[in-house]
Formats: sequence, structure tokens, C-alpha cells
Amino acid sequence: MHTSIATVSLSGTLTEKLAAAARAGFGGVEIFENDLLACPLAPEEIRARCADLGLSIDLYQPMRDIEAVPDDVFARNLRRARRKFELMNRLGADTVLVCSSVSPDAVDDDARAAGQLARLADLAQESGIRVAYEALAWGRHVSTYEHAWRIVEAAGHPALGVCLDSFHILSRGCDPKGIEDIPGEKIFFLQLADAPLLAMDVLQWSRHYRCFPGQGGFDLAGLLRHVLAAGYEGPLSLEVFNDVFRQADAGSTAVDAHRSLLLLQEAAGAAVLPPAVVPTGVAFAELLTPDAEPVTALLTALGFTRAARHRGKPVDLWQRGEARVLVNTAATARREGTRLAAIGLESPDPAGAARRAEALLAPVLPRRRAPGDAPLEAVAAPDGTELFFCATGRPELPDWRADFADLPDTPAPPATRTRIDHLAVTQPWHHFDEATLFHRSVLGLTAQESVDLADPYGLMRSRAVTNADGSVRIALGVGAAPTDDTVHAAHIALATDDVVAAARAFRAAGGCLLTVPANYYDDLAARYDLPDEELETYRDLGILYDRDAGGAFRHCYTATVGRVFFELVQRDPGHQGYGAANAPVRLAAQHAGRR
Amino acid sequence: MHTSIATVSLSGTLTEKLAAAARAGFGGVEIFENDLLACPLAPEEIRARCADLGLSIDLYQPMRDIEAVPDDVFARNLRRARRKFELMNRLGADTVLVCSSVSPDAVDDDARAAGQLARLADLAQESGIRVAYEALAWGRHVSTYEHAWRIVEAAGHPALGVCLDSFHILSRGCDPKGIEDIPGEKIFFLQLADAPLLAMDVLQWSRHYRCFPGQGGFDLAGLLRHVLAAGYEGPLSLEVFNDVFRQADAGSTAVDAHRSLLLLQEAAGAAVLPPAVVPTGVAFAELLTPDAEPVTALLTALGFTRAARHRGKPVDLWQRGEARVLVNTAATARREGTRLAAIGLESPDPAGAARRAEALLAPVLPRRRAPGDAPLEAVAAPDGTELFFCATGRPELPDWRADFADLPDTPAPPATRTRIDHLAVTQPWHHFDEATLFHRSVLGLTAQESVDLADPYGLMRSRAVTNADGSVRIALGVGAAPTDDTVHAAHIALATDDVVAAARAFRAAGGCLLTVPANYYDDLAARYDLPDEELETYRDLGILYDRDAGGAFRHCYTATVGRVFFELVQRDPGHQGYGAANAPVRLAAQHAGRR
Repeated sequence: MHTSIATVSLSGTLTEKLAAAARAGFGGVEIFENDLLACPLAPEEIRARCADLGLSIDLYQPMRDIEAVPDDVFARNLRRARRKFELMNRLGADTVLVCSSVSPDAVDDDARAAGQLARLADLAQESGIRVAYEALAWGRHVSTYEHAWRIVEAAGHPALGVCLDSFHILSRGCDPKGIEDIPGEKIFFLQLADAPLLAMDVLQWSRHYRCFPGQGGFDLAGLLRHVLAAGYEGPLSLEVFNDVFRQADAGSTAVDAHRSLLLLQEAAGAAVLPPAVVPTGVAFAELLTPDAEPVTALLTALGFTRAARHRGKPVDLWQRGEARVLVNTAATARREGTRLAAIGLESPDPAGAARRAEALLAPVLPRRRAPGDAPLEAVAAPDGTELFFCATGRPELPDWRADFADLPDTPAPPATRTRIDHLAVTQPWHHFDEATLFHRSVLGLTAQESVDLADPYGLMRSRAVTNADGSVRIALGVGAAPTDDTVHAAHIALATDDVVAAARAFRAAGGCLLTVPANYYDDLAARYDLPDEELETYRDLGILYDRDAGGAFRHCYTATVGRVFFELVQRDPGHQGYGAANAPVRLAAQHAGRR
Repeated sequence: MHTSIATVSLSGTLTEKLAAAARAGFGGVEIFENDLLACPLAPEEIRARCADLGLSIDLYQPMRDIEAVPDDVFARNLRRARRKFELMNRLGADTVLVCSSVSPDAVDDDARAAGQLARLADLAQESGIRVAYEALAWGRHVSTYEHAWRIVEAAGHPALGVCLDSFHILSRGCDPKGIEDIPGEKIFFLQLADAPLLAMDVLQWSRHYRCFPGQGGFDLAGLLRHVLAAGYEGPLSLEVFNDVFRQADAGSTAVDAHRSLLLLQEAAGAAVLPPAVVPTGVAFAELLTPDAEPVTALLTALGFTRAARHRGKPVDLWQRGEARVLVNTAATARREGTRLAAIGLESPDPAGAARRAEALLAPVLPRRRAPGDAPLEAVAAPDGTELFFCATGRPELPDWRADFADLPDTPAPPATRTRIDHLAVTQPWHHFDEATLFHRSVLGLTAQESVDLADPYGLMRSRAVTNADGSVRIALGVGAAPTDDTVHAAHIALATDDVVAAARAFRAAGGCLLTVPANYYDDLAARYDLPDEELETYRDLGILYDRDAGGAFRHCYTATVGRVFFELVQRDPGHQGYGAANAPVRLAAQHAGRR
């Protein structure tokens, strides 16, 4: 279907917005009046710019407070409308949005509303324009789509139809089933927005908290099915008022927006995308570092051994049990320091996984990074992390491991069941919801609830995405503010059967564990019936403890190198958490360590 | 009264919070459990630190989910409580907060609740501790202060009383009058928080949007009067969960917090402060600049003449009509560029105005900036702007003007009624509500509604504070995000009787007016019945137009120098706005000018 986005959904000037929408693959835009007014280009120039970019102008919006008013007010409104229709002709836009009136002048008189809208449609028709009438959720007398449709039906004018807006319908809890009773050709336009389910004033909710389909709590696929069942064939258009998106980079917001519409069509059965291929494990985590020394010292203390070296690049494979960490010292911006640059995910069908990612607008990375390398499937996540779809040890498929030559003189790694429990990745501030949607929709992972973590200098949010058996767990985190450069580094959590033994071995090997305040252990003693000896061990090693109905979670942290640290985790099989209850203490201790 | 603040209200580590609270003049703190757990100091060390700082520990909080539970659960709770009472003895805290239970274990049985609370109080009493029981607004069975009091009364234990929290009472719309029926000595503690009047989930509202008294919409003075009428003699304590304060500098947040408590006591009749002395006009605006040339070129084009020079410092007085601008080239950080550094406010009683400001914790500036200068009264606003309280031309008082020597060779300024219409000052991101409260409470100005302004790169908020006759108008603005370094410079708006003539004269003198897109004028034509000629004039000069029931507002903008620009304003007497409707167009044009 033709996709479109309202310019108000993106940050920047009108011309920046148009460029971002086109780059992201939208077919058209709704032009928001304020964006046009603030633009130095004449309407004809905007029209030409859109044509250049391959964008249609699907809607001009909005006209407000037009209908159900006294005759003298309506005469003024028609005069205003005439000017706007002239403008739309210059712009090449043929549909105008008219929102139901919120004016104190408006009266509760459907016949008057219908009559005046018909006269407006007469005037529009002379200019080749259609009028799409939309019920605002807070309209003075008309606030439901059923009511708007009754008025449009009564007006009976070919240039008058309804505009349906998912926010205005679903925020009021209206049943979208009735949409099917509207003839498809009288649905002139469909505006889509999701929103988190907030109990708050609907006007504020609408103006500040809308989000893209799949990022909120509305059943937009259900609504879309009803609209399609009614016979609607017009654009799917996003109209999203969101304070965060207003500040965010328009380019990535537009990509995120377009992805959400592709997913919505898939969910509503209106489009077929390559199916998701859920990853079945973590093949490796790759660290990019300007100086391997501190990282390899940390890995060594953690019991990793250097098992192999890339045949053509300065990349070493460090391994302990099933946990593999690549240390890449290829040229990198020195100021960035050590960072988590890539994640290898085991995939039953790497090519299929990449096909879906590409269909969902993830940048595809070069399949061979160097001549002779195995042709790997890889895409970039929204935060820039490279995701490799791997088929480790499967001879019928290209294997990343084949690019590495074993180091025969290395001592065999100790027999251990160590593996990667989870990876925690810090997201750019403006793109937290985007990151969740990406990992859910592109990788087929399931998102857990978002949790707030109290850092001493502001709240963090964290949300984990996992596969069904928990063999892939990625915690997406975001700092409190755009300027945030606190301790919210990425981290690699290593699963171990015995965190006490692992912590002791790490310390014995010269590793430095995060110091946890004694007060924390006094509180543990008050909260849980832990034997004194166990508590003393935890206190000594800085092991944190949490418990839920599924069992216990024990964990401790290494020092941070660059923007990465490690965690040692002992997870009871039924425990699904990540130590959120301990996060305030951990974050404070990490800050203290930086003083 | 003794004032106190919960550590959760401030940003940082526990020790940072304690230092900030003490510096701001608080007498005590409530220690929030998570802050203690994350602190590397032992409880005894925290106690000593507080004693050093002159802070009492007025409350330890919270204990949760204690009461109205099955016996086995209560036995575990008592065990936990015993540990916490030991901790409190080490800490030297004698009152513990117990929130009404939200646990699914809790039953709706007041007798059980009272019995268990009495047993808890027995245990507490053995350690010299009092239990303050508080109804959470979302408590499972106990959610009103009346209900909590009935249970406390039924328990009849000397070590058990209630804790009243203004948020939990007023967010539910409870009538605080009933507080007077509680014996004062049974009110063990009073927690104060204001909040904006939001229609949203009360738990989220409470956890993220609380603010200091006077910054929100609650009648806290009314509540406090009832509490005092009941005979309460304990601390006034702030417990404010606020996402912004969590990120903000603890030092200035603490000052703001303490100021709010002083004002609350004044409003409730519990304290007498020096009365507000409302300013009666703007004496001058002072620009600090590393290079006077661009500023004086701008002033010259605006029709200002250099009228006088400071006798001892590199400060010139530029004047046009009643508008006076000081240009100060004293050493300043060159990178800051030209900025609005000070505002002179005409005051009927400069010493009185300064006394109130000082009582309300505004830093008092040295009365003489140099030997020989008039002893001026001046304080710093929260954003660092210096506020001078002036008595221009009143021989009985020190006069700033006397520090300036007239420049006799200057041509007489043209006869004009030009004066300063308003000053717009950009506030630090985290301190917008603080700024409003400061200007209201310290200067006695009245705050208008806060408005959102759509900048292309994010929403701005703006709120004007004015005196009754509009001769002092200050627009406080804040950018969309902490990182915001967009065009939101300060500006000086000059009132003129004829903006067209003023704009033409400015341009004729070589001044450069902000270019406003033609599309804006097409819209003006659609919205208002302006004669074509008038519209053409506006289009030519870049004059913006707004109208409300009080009349019209015409305005245009100069180019920006450093972080300051000027506005020319023609305000109909009844118009109270600042051109908010035109702000999106103006802000976009200013961005365009910086490309």
C-alpha cells in the first residue's frame, strides 16, 4: 500500500523532513500547515521538491473550527478556505483534513454541520479538492468516527468523506468494527498512530505521547483490518505527535516510522514479508578497542583463553566454554575507547534472517569484510551495533569460525559451562522504542516489560528482548537524558553455574570486582533468610542477590574498560530477571569507582 | 519550623545530597533506603556526617507491606523490622515511615492491621523508635489519611502515629479539613509535595511528577493550616519524586526546595518574611560582551545613542526614549559571547526588595561593585542573571545613574516613547519551575500560563511573569532538551508606537531584520481581513502579526549577536501575549539564518 507520513512526525525544517521521508522509502507526506508557513520555499517549489524526491502530497492539514457555526462565522471560514484551496492547488495537494470543531462558536446541530461541510465541499470541488472530515477525540460536539460519518453521510457530497485517525478512535475506547459499515470510497484518508496506554488527559496524551505502530499499546492491526474490510484503498499515513521525535534525528525516525508501517501491514495480513528467523544462541560478542591490553587482561582473569586469530585481520577469538569474545584492534576512533561493536547470533537460517532485516530497512553490511572471508550475513541495528547471523559449525553454510585459525600452542580452555547469559546494550537517547521494535520485529525476539532503574544522576530505562528458551537475551538500556554520559556502558554477562567460584577465580587471577557497600548486605540479611556464611561470602566478593518466584539470581561486576564491563551471573533456571532491584546500588558503585 | 527534605528529592550520591541539603539551610533529612544501601559509609559514619553538617535524621523510609497480613508473613516482617530498627539506632534516626500495604497478601481487616501495627510499635519502642503510618493513595485497602488514622487510633499505641503526605491526600481530592480531628501529637510526620494537576494514573503521577510547594497546583498552604491547627509541631519535610530533579544539580535543587518551604510557611501564616516589593518598571538591561562593536552597531541602527559612560568601568549607557541598555566590556569569558547579564528593575523600596530576596535564599551581590559606586541592591536570579533594584532619579536613594557621567557631545536622543516591552531570558533546562517560582515569590510578579512553542528541533516552553500594569514583563523560556544550544538566545523587546516606522528606520540605518517566509503572509491573508497594503508592508519588513480579544500584537526581530537579539513590538494596550502563535515561524527563520 502507499505509505505516507505527516511532516509533524519528524524533526527539522520542512525540506529536511521531506528528504528524510523519501530516503526512508515513504511514498508520500501529509504537509502540516506550520511546516509550510515556516518554509522559505514557495508552494510551487515545495511541490517540485516533493516530485523530485518521489513523494506525493497526500494531505494538507489541518483546517479547524469550520462547521456548525453561525452564518457570519461560516462566511469568514469559507473565505479562509478559498485561500487555502488556492494554496493547495499551487502545492498540488488534493485532500484537505478538516478536524471537528472545538470552537465555542460551534453548536450541537448535525444538520447545520452537514450543510456547511457540503458547502465547503462545493468550494473544494471547484478546485479539484476533497475534504476529509475527522472527529477529534476532544471535539466539541463531534468526537467519534461514527458521528463524523453520520454527518458526512447526511451531507451526501461526492467531495466530502471521512478521515479516520487511529488515535482518536482507540484513545476513546471506540469499537473500530463499525468502520466496516462505512463505504470504502467514503474513507478519504487513514492516519495511524499508536500510543502507550496512559490514563491521562486525552489532549495532552495525543499531542505529546503518540508513537509509531507497534511501539504503543493500541491494536492497530485490528483497526487496519476493519478499514481494509470497508474497502479503503488510500494511503496508510502516520501522524505522530511526540516530544522525543521532535528532537530526534529525522533520518532515523523516518526509517523507524516506515518500518512500523511495513510491520503493521504484515500484522494486518495486508503484506507478506520474509518471516522472522528467531536466533537460537549467541555465537560471539565483538569488542572494538584501540588498545587490546586492558581487555585481554580482563578476559584472561575471567578464564578466557585466546583460541584463534582471524586469518586476515587483527581480530582474536577469546573463549571460555561456550562464551566467545572477539577482540578487534582494527583502526577505530581512539576517543571512543573500547566498545561492544558486534553481536553474532546463531541462526537456523542466516540468509532468511538477513532477508527479513533488509525488508525491514536494516542496513545490510558487506557480506565479505575482506577477500577470503566467509560470506556472512550481517545487518546494522539502529544503534549501529553490527548483528551477524551465524551458522557456527554447520558445514553446509558459511561459517565465521572458518575465518579464524586456531592457535595450537594455546592451553586448552578449562572445561566449563560458561556461556553468555545476556548482553546489555546502551541505546541512543531518542531511539529506545525504536530499538525495542527493531529487536522484536526484525529478530523475532520477545520484549519483556520496561523497567525504571534509579541511577544516582537520573532514571534509566531498561527493556530486555529474549528468545523463548532464554539462550538469547539482550537488555536494551537508555540513560536519563540526551547528555547522559554516565556509567551506562554496554556489558557482557557470563552465565556460570557457580558465581562464587567464578568470582573467586577472577579475583585470584588479579581481576578487580566492583565494590558493593556493606549497607546492601545488611539489607539482604533483613530481606532474606540467607545463612550468615553465604552472606559473608557475598559481602566479600561483591555478589548481589535477587529472588523471585522462579528462583534466585546472583551476580557481580568487573571494572569497566572503555565503555564495556563484564558481569558474572548465576541464574536459577526459572528466574527471568536481570537484577533490576540491585541496579541502584550497582550504578552508584560504578559512579563511585569513577571518582 | 524545622525543615527537612527526603534524600530521594535530590540528585547524586547520599553524601552529595546531604551536603546540598545542609548548604541550602535545611535542618534535617529523611533518609531513603536505597540511598543508604548504595552508600559506602557505615550508618555510624552517615550519622556523624549529618551531625557535622548540622542535619538531623528525621525519618528513615520506607517500610512496606508490613500490616494486615497472615501471621506467618507478619512474623517474617517483624524479623525484617528488627534489623531495620538496629540500623536506625546506628543511624540515630528515631522515626520510621510505614506505608500502607500494597501487597496481595494483605487483607481488608482493620483490626488485624491495628493489632499488627501495635506489635510493630512495641518492637520499635524497645529501640526508642516511633512508627509513622501513612496511607498511600494506591494502598491496597488503606488509601486515605482518615482510614490510616482510624487504624492508628484503634491500635492505641504511644509509639504509633500517622504520617501525612500532601500528595497522597490531595491527589485523591480528599478534604484536608479532617486533619484537624487528629490530635497533633499523633501526627508524627508531615511530608510535603506539590504536583501539577494532571489527569493520569496516580502512581505514575506520584513517582515522576511531584514538585516543590508552589510549583504545582495543590493548595498546600490550606493543608498546612489544617495540620498546624491539629497541633502538629514536627518537621515540614519535602518528599518529591521528580524525573527532572533526579538529573539536576543537587545544590540548586536544594536551594529551590528550601525556598519553597519558606514560602509555604509564609502562605500558611506560620512565618513572616519581608514582604514582596513589586517592581514598577525596567531601569535597564545590561549586556556583557567581549566585543562591543556588533552590539553597538545594532543599537545604533535601532536608534539608540550613547548617552553616558560609567565613571569607573568599561560600561556605556545606550538610550532611546525610556529604553536603556548598558554595554559592559569588562573581562568576560570570550567563548560565551554577548549575553544578557543583568536587569535593572525600578523598585519603590530597593532595600526591602533585597531583604525579601535574601530571606528567600537569593545570593546577594556586593553592594558596591567598585569604590565610589552607588551602594546598589542586587541579587542573583537562579539562572545567574543579576537583578538590580533601582531607584532611578530619586535623590533620597542611591541611584545607579549617578555612577554614569553624561556624554555631553552626544546628540540628544530623538523624542520617542520607546521603552522595554519585555525581556526574554533562557533558563537552564532543569530549573524552569524554579525560575517561575523565584520570579513570582521573590519579585512579587504574576505568572501567566506556560505555553509550548514548536521549534523545528523540539518543543520549547515559555512562561511570562509580569507586574500588574505590564511595565515589567519577563518571558522565561526553556529549550527542549538539556543539550539544547539552538537559537534560544535571550532577547530585549522594545515597545514602539509604530512598528512599521521603527522597522523601516532600523533597516534604513543598515539594520538587518529577520526574514519571514512568504507563506506566512499568505496565511495571514487567509486568517485576518488585513488590507493588502498593510500585508505587503508586513511582508516587506518581516513583521509578524497576532490578535486576540485585547487587540493586536505586531513584532519583528533583528539578527542575533552572540546570544542576544532584539525585537520591535507594537502592542495594543489590551493585548497580553508575546506572539506565541508566530513562534514556530520565527524560530525556524532564526535557525535558517544560522545555516
